[in-house]
Amino acid sequence: MSMQIPVIVVGALGKMGREVVKAVQHAPDTQLYAAVDRHHIGEDVGEVLGVGALEVPLSGSLQEVCVAAAQEKQPVVMVDFTHPQAVYENVRMAIAYGVYPVVGTTGLSHDQIADLAEFADKAEMGAVIAPNFSIGMVLLQEAAIRASQYFDHVEIIELHHNQKADAPSGTAVQTAQRLAELGKPFNPAQVEETEHLAGARGAHASGNIRIHSVRLPGLIAHQEVIFGSAGQVYTLRHDTSDRQCYMPGVLLAIRKVIHLKRLIYGLEKLL
Amino acid sequence: MSMQIPVIVVGALGKMGREVVKAVQHAPDTQLYAAVDRHHIGEDVGEVLGVGALEVPLSGSLQEVCVAAAQEKQPVVMVDFTHPQAVYENVRMAIAYGVYPVVGTTGLSHDQIADLAEFADKAEMGAVIAPNFSIGMVLLQEAAIRASQYFDHVEIIELHHNQKADAPSGTAVQTAQRLAELGKPFNPAQVEETEHLAGARGAHASGNIRIHSVRLPGLIAHQEVIFGSAGQVYTLRHDTSDRQCYMPGVLLAIRKVIHLKRLIYGLEKLL
Amino acid sequence: MSMQIPVIVVGALGKMGREVVKAVQHAPDTQLYAAVDRHHIGEDVGEVLGVGALEVPLSGSLQEVCVAAAQEKQPVVMVDFTHPQAVYENVRMAIAYGVYPVVGTTGLSHDQIADLAEFADKAEMGAVIAPNFSIGMVLLQEAAIRASQYFDHVEIIELHHNQKADAPSGTAVQTAQRLAELGKPFNPAQVEETEHLAGARGAHASGNIRIHSVRLPGLIAHQEVIFGSAGQVYTLRHDTSDRQCYMPGVLLAIRKVIHLKRLIYGLEKLL
Amino acid sequence: MSMQIPVIVVGALGKMGREVVKAVQHAPDTQLYAAVDRHHIGEDVGEVLGVGALEVPLSGSLQEVCVAAAQEKQPVVMVDFTHPQAVYENVRMAIAYGVYPVVGTTGLSHDQIADLAEFADKAEMGAVIAPNFSIGMVLLQEAAIRASQYFDHVEIIELHHNQKADAPSGTAVQTAQRLAELGKPFNPAQVEETEHLAGARGAHASGNIRIHSVRLPGLIAHQEVIFGSAGQVYTLRHDTSDRQCYMPGVLLAIRKVIHLKRLIYGLEKLL
Repeated sequence: MSMQIPVIVVGALGKMGREVVKAVQHAPDTQLYAAVDRHHIGEDVGEVLGVGALEVPLSGSLQEVCVAAAQEKQPVVMVDFTHPQAVYENVRMAIAYGVYPVVGTTGLSHDQIADLAEFADKAEMGAVIAPNFSIGMVLLQEAAIRASQYFDHVEIIELHHNQKADAPSGTAVQTAQRLAELGKPFNPAQVEETEHLAGARGAHASGNIRIHSVRLPGLIAHQEVIFGSAGQVYTLRHDTSDRQCYMPGVLLAIRKVIHLKRLIYGLEKLL
Repeated sequence: MSMQIPVIVVGALGKMGREVVKAVQHAPDTQLYAAVDRHHIGEDVGEVLGVGALEVPLSGSLQEVCVAAAQEKQPVVMVDFTHPQAVYENVRMAIAYGVYPVVGTTGLSHDQIADLAEFADKAEMGAVIAPNFSIGMVLLQEAAIRASQYFDHVEIIELHHNQKADAPSGTAVQTAQRLAELGKPFNPAQVEETEHLAGARGAHASGNIRIHSVRLPGLIAHQEVIFGSAGQVYTLRHDTSDRQCYMPGVLLAIRKVIHLKRLIYGLEKLL
Repeated sequence: MSMQIPVIVVGALGKMGREVVKAVQHAPDTQLYAAVDRHHIGEDVGEVLGVGALEVPLSGSLQEVCVAAAQEKQPVVMVDFTHPQAVYENVRMAIAYGVYPVVGTTGLSHDQIADLAEFADKAEMGAVIAPNFSIGMVLLQEAAIRASQYFDHVEIIELHHNQKADAPSGTAVQTAQRLAELGKPFNPAQVEETEHLAGARGAHASGNIRIHSVRLPGLIAHQEVIFGSAGQVYTLRHDTSDRQCYMPGVLLAIRKVIHLKRLIYGLEKLL
Repeated sequence: MSMQIPVIVVGALGKMGREVVKAVQHAPDTQLYAAVDRHHIGEDVGEVLGVGALEVPLSGSLQEVCVAAAQEKQPVVMVDFTHPQAVYENVRMAIAYGVYPVVGTTGLSHDQIADLAEFADKAEMGAVIAPNFSIGMVLLQEAAIRASQYFDHVEIIELHHNQKADAPSGTAVQTAQRLAELGKPFNPAQVEETEHLAGARGAHASGNIRIHSVRLPGLIAHQEVIFGSAGQVYTLRHDTSDRQCYMPGVLLAIRKVIHLKRLIYGLEKLL
């Protein structure tokens, strides 16, 4: 029995999937077990990704892969970065075959997640669903929660490339929500504010926290949480420049999911 | 005849006035000629400001001071940081007596400034009025204007203490205006934007430039102009922490005004 | 018996002392009990500090003040921001009279601190000594320690005004030390580095962590800890602009010291 | 005769060359005339680069391409991002055939550049050689030169990924040199400095300007020039995240070189 955790990558040719293939291949304690995608079926996934042969042919059927995985003597993990339409069924199938799902695909509804949690519970199987696999962002949010005990004033600036259509970013909204859950009344007013130009003071997010969204070409994905009190400013900033930044979080989830017996939502619960 | 320019400081005990008194005293080529204020009349201005005797008693009458200055054989400068109500008359009086005004007091109307310009013209007297004596900010704006020739995308973030009631800051609005005057259509959209929370994308200022206003205790006065294009970001930032930062601009105006024959509006025209 | 903690401020006219006097007076649960200094003895401390009468005359004798405090039915705290020469005796005296010391004065030797700890132990008295009362900096260090579990690469930039003679700053050195104590080999080399100009890569501090010290007028006191891994950067920054920023830490220590029975070194142990 | 400038890209399959191919193809006023490389000769350059057929086969001979270009009725430009060994001959050949060179390849010696300048002079041909085609960086340097008239204190921080072996970066050294050429004594000392840890205060570059080099994974290529004076800090920052950022500079050089009659060194001379 190998000491390396076998990993099925679903959506292996997608933008995230291909990073996962490379990360799993590169890490000493994980191993690419299968690669599933709708394209290039039968071809070597490494050749298709231009990283040299990996001896793993692309498969078009997750079920076939799961049937094989069910025969393994050690736990197999499935990493899913696919589509909102496909992910629910993929996770059900994985659990049904005793494969541990790690899911980065977004778009699952509240009900679907609750459903999958129940399914995992009954099967006593671990599963991890996370909207964001960036350990850096989880650390930032943790540090912000901690700072909120001592600072009463905080604002968020998020900066993204100008092809991002929605504002504020989901992560900035979630950061504000996590701070708001502390139940503290943030940003008590010192003066009566006047906005000469509407929007200057940003969006009111949860907890009376302002979010400012900057959109410019050349930017990638950045978030700043700024705390202030008399005489001091404390700033937490996270800059993302490449999808590689999610791989430590994906690998962490792979290593942890096989020891779980239920579904965990959010990378922060694994740190 | 002294090589030092004699300077009358009006509003000498105000927050800016007291910095001007100290700067004029400290610079090698200027000299405190008189200090005018409504308080502590007759006392030594240096003693009142806690910097040691300067042998200049506070005067309550700008007119008396101007009468004396008119007898001097060299040009005398008046620096005015007083009130919107007082400044117009102060400048008229200075010019009438051949004293060169340098004005940092804000609140003069368009018409009043036009009036004073005409008055200075007729007298062939130099005068400088500037809403902002920060050389750093003028350099930032100049650099931003220059960058606008090569960048099509730009946003502004200004950050101030949370006792500032209005947003955006006047300086940020003016920065956007100066860029907008170039006549360039900034920030052509790449995608159709959606604001999930109103205000996230900031205020629409002149030239389709967004301004984001952050207000937190611990901040002082900061402005960032961020340019972006494919693969690069170019950021100009100015941080102010003390009124001393305006003194190089005030001294520059003192040195230049005595060589002018008309009214100049804006420090940028002196650099 | 009052619900407010009575506080003796020693060095009440020093730069930190005067902030403590104001903070203690302003906080709802503390109260200025006595003010000790070598100057202006007998005058009202509030008058001397220009904040209006506080009905507390400056005393020249800590002992006299302690004798009185020993009669109080509730615990009295002494806050000491004085001199390395005076602080040791001050703390001994306070403990001897049952007054709880909170010490921000730096310069106590290792042996002196050990001595005072033993003295406090025997008396079963609380005492707090902290080289830095900035809660923001403690939070930054905590967040950096946490991030060190997940990031292998980190550098520190500290920026101060150019009247600071020593580099790196004590706080930056201490930040590196706290990270180094984790025992992790930071910053494994990727390439063999060449410094074309000596010093470019900064100082080697504890744990193979580089510190870069910037000195410029206009800067006040700033520290940045930058973590990097493939595709991401996580930055923690603390900016100090006024001694007020230390007051929440001093007040926290005042509130906690009266519940302690031994000497605590470092604000981080109180958070 | 076409309104588009025909462009030969030499080193078309290199990291920079492929960006140039795409930029030239995409710009409305330039047109890919030929692509030269040692690999994939005869294949369509667009196909090889994965951007779809461009109807331009890769050629292995710059000479053949120049012979053809010499027959064109309009000026043809050659863009060279190749190797230090090849570039000198490429430029000589281009000029010999009346093709206008735009060169980004680094490594030409002082003598070689002088030689090529003489050659271009005699031929009355325009040529552009630039070590850095980033317009953003040129703007930053220009703004820094301007600020140096008014600020006496400045330091540089450059931050790069940890696979960069040399420090400080060539661009940071060049930025310091350009400021030093102003002949101003920067950074007069306020206090006698002590480095407790060698290197803390960075490298002494030209003009008594300090450079601090940060190296971390996750960083790409960043430079900050920080000016300070009493009460203010003025910061210029340039962040590069993709080679695309050099294309506006390359296109600018293409458009300008055909109107020149001599060799120009440095993009800053074209802005």
